[in-house]
Amino acid sequence: MASGNLLYAQSGGVTAVINATASGVIGEARARKVKVLAARNGILGALREELIDTSKESAAAIRGLAHTPGGAFGSCRYKLKSLEADRARYERLLDVLRAHDVRWFLYNGGNDSADTAHKVSQLAAEFDYPLTCIGVPKTIDNDLAVTDCCPGFGSAAKYTAVSVREAALDVAAMAETSTKVFVYEAMGRHAGWLAAAAGLAGEGPDDAPHLILFPERPYDEADFLARVRKVVDRVGYCVVVASEGIQTADGRFVADAGGGKDSFGHTQLGGVASYLAGKVKDELGLKVHWTLPDYLQRSARHIASKTDLDQALAVGKAAVRLALAGRNATMPVIRRTADKPYRWKIDSAPLEQVANHEKKMPAGFLRRDGYGITAAARRYLEPLIRGEAYPPYRNGIPAYVTLKNAPVKKKLPAWKG
Amino acid sequence: MASGNLLYAQSGGVTAVINATASGVIGEARARKVKVLAARNGILGALREELIDTSKESAAAIRGLAHTPGGAFGSCRYKLKSLEADRARYERLLDVLRAHDVRWFLYNGGNDSADTAHKVSQLAAEFDYPLTCIGVPKTIDNDLAVTDCCPGFGSAAKYTAVSVREAALDVAAMAETSTKVFVYEAMGRHAGWLAAAAGLAGEGPDDAPHLILFPERPYDEADFLARVRKVVDRVGYCVVVASEGIQTADGRFVADAGGGKDSFGHTQLGGVASYLAGKVKDELGLKVHWTLPDYLQRSARHIASKTDLDQALAVGKAAVRLALAGRNATMPVIRRTADKPYRWKIDSAPLEQVANHEKKMPAGFLRRDGYGITAAARRYLEPLIRGEAYPPYRNGIPAYVTLKNAPVKKKLPAWKG
Repeated sequence: MASGNLLYAQSGGVTAVINATASGVIGEARARKVKVLAARNGILGALREELIDTSKESAAAIRGLAHTPGGAFGSCRYKLKSLEADRARYERLLDVLRAHDVRWFLYNGGNDSADTAHKVSQLAAEFDYPLTCIGVPKTIDNDLAVTDCCPGFGSAAKYTAVSVREAALDVAAMAETSTKVFVYEAMGRHAGWLAAAAGLAGEGPDDAPHLILFPERPYDEADFLARVRKVVDRVGYCVVVASEGIQTADGRFVADAGGGKDSFGHTQLGGVASYLAGKVKDELGLKVHWTLPDYLQRSARHIASKTDLDQALAVGKAAVRLALAGRNATMPVIRRTADKPYRWKIDSAPLEQVANHEKKMPAGFLRRDGYGITAAARRYLEPLIRGEAYPPYRNGIPAYVTLKNAPVKKKLPAWKG
Repeated sequence: MASGNLLYAQSGGVTAVINATASGVIGEARARKVKVLAARNGILGALREELIDTSKESAAAIRGLAHTPGGAFGSCRYKLKSLEADRARYERLLDVLRAHDVRWFLYNGGNDSADTAHKVSQLAAEFDYPLTCIGVPKTIDNDLAVTDCCPGFGSAAKYTAVSVREAALDVAAMAETSTKVFVYEAMGRHAGWLAAAAGLAGEGPDDAPHLILFPERPYDEADFLARVRKVVDRVGYCVVVASEGIQTADGRFVADAGGGKDSFGHTQLGGVASYLAGKVKDELGLKVHWTLPDYLQRSARHIASKTDLDQALAVGKAAVRLALAGRNATMPVIRRTADKPYRWKIDSAPLEQVANHEKKMPAGFLRRDGYGITAAARRYLEPLIRGEAYPPYRNGIPAYVTLKNAPVKKKLPAWKG
């Protein structure tokens, strides 16, 4: 066993299960007698030399991470550019790694993080510093290449399907004298994966959600409103799920039409659901309610998918195994081996294949009319939300873990980033 | 045992557990060999003679109601006025009850429903028709008089506390480089019960939610924004929970300031969280996210409170016992007999004491500065969200029950309401 430390960092938007991946990483490393440092607030902490000594945490706390949402060490939105453009930053990163005897660097994030890890590995080779860089997949957007699905997505998808089903039962009960249309706004700026997951809330043509709006299809207002009217006439009410990223045929985001500035010049924060609800009210004269779950959908550990949790833990453990085996510039990925019954295993892929690619939803997942999902989409999505993985509760609230996050003593001059 | 049927109707906004009350009603009535009819869409179904024969439902379906949110028979927003103003409607109601040999009428709702049940009982006496009217409590607003708490509130409160806790962990992880302020909009037009429940998400002064805005206290924008700034400076981020009903000192709803019409005359649906988020962005220049859970908070059976579920079932069963005992014009209520450990029992109260009263939050529940809850509020609220009562799942989605809702043959001429 080589001596040295392992550095783990979380990047980008957090999820209900990214801490489960951290739990997998730290648990596996402990079993192999490797010390894990964590960067505070993602790559920024690595640049600032703000490191956390995870060996100060109890075994119970590390196990507890697996049922705790958010990012236990802090995350960040901070993108390193190309080696050429950002060379000073990459070199500083290498300095910090070297100063703390970091031999394995695990970067837990999306496309950008895979790219960053890849570049760090190249620079280390150039400087002849013995470092193994591993990307660890994470994103509720489900848009990473190669892997069959992304840890974090399944839980957000389950939240979405369950919430839409529940709200639909409410609307169904109220529709006779009150709310007839309900609009749910799902995250997904570029791809409609979460909006598609809402489709699992129902099965028959009269089941909610009755209409799903995907960023993959242009938003046609007249057609949309006509369909809402038809569904209300036929079913008595209409549940709409709209992806935040829907655009008109000429490429304008509908979210930008809602909101904006009011007549006093004050910011009006709206979004897609707010906009669509306004249209339904104005154009169809129907009573409408709408919801913007926002962060609730990606932090809802209380309704996490067991499949997702298992995969989040597994990629964390696999990342440590890949790291210690010296599999530089790779990422553990999830490979689906069967649909029914669903089976998966952990495989690995070169970071190069993952970095800066974006996985779109296959065209075959969208119904021909563009307002719903196909059987193929169901076959893909359904196993990902399967299984419940409840956190423990104390006094009615999930007993989420707070770490000590003990700082590692700095050894370098302050970073002037 | 007197012969005759029992009529059950659901009224007003539905909850995560109103069907549990229905399950209690039907289960208890079946055990006592009494047939239960249900009105389709609440009191409207009774007026229209649109009745449902619940004896066509299996025992499993009736048990399943206890884990199914929404209103299984449909609800309505339809208020009967005074006996004088709406006498024809009350008489029609009595005609329908008589035509279907209804000897017990159970009306499951809030203040208005208690009032309606009370008036129906008066009229029945006047016409010498042997009817026992029982009000059955239900509302997420927790504003019914006499009862210690209202079935439906505890589950919405648990949803609120859990969601705020989870979102806060997300914001805490992102705050260094991204979202610094998060605003959560809670239901509660007249009283801040649900906003108060959010207070259970944290304990210490630096725990989220950092600021709660109650309708009981005037909204002072300058003071609010100054406090947001202070919390961000001290903690690094700020989680705000705002009741939809907050008003400025001169009595204007803040929700009406957000939204309204845009400069093209189109409806802008906003609300309180949208408005506050806009102010935080414009005035403080901080990155902000916000959520409007809307119906999700009252239909989230997946995160129902066990205490709430038990009480919803219990008031349903008690209502049948009161009815069969001829306790006309009463309501089963929840009486708290101890705080620690929490104990409660079912008692009864005259509908007159419940009807048209609104229970406000005690002044002692609000912190002196008006932005948080006191220890007394915690003592009251905490038992109400305690315990988990998960529904069964099928393929990753709760296995909610759909009833057959077989119609009862009409006997009367159509109602020209």
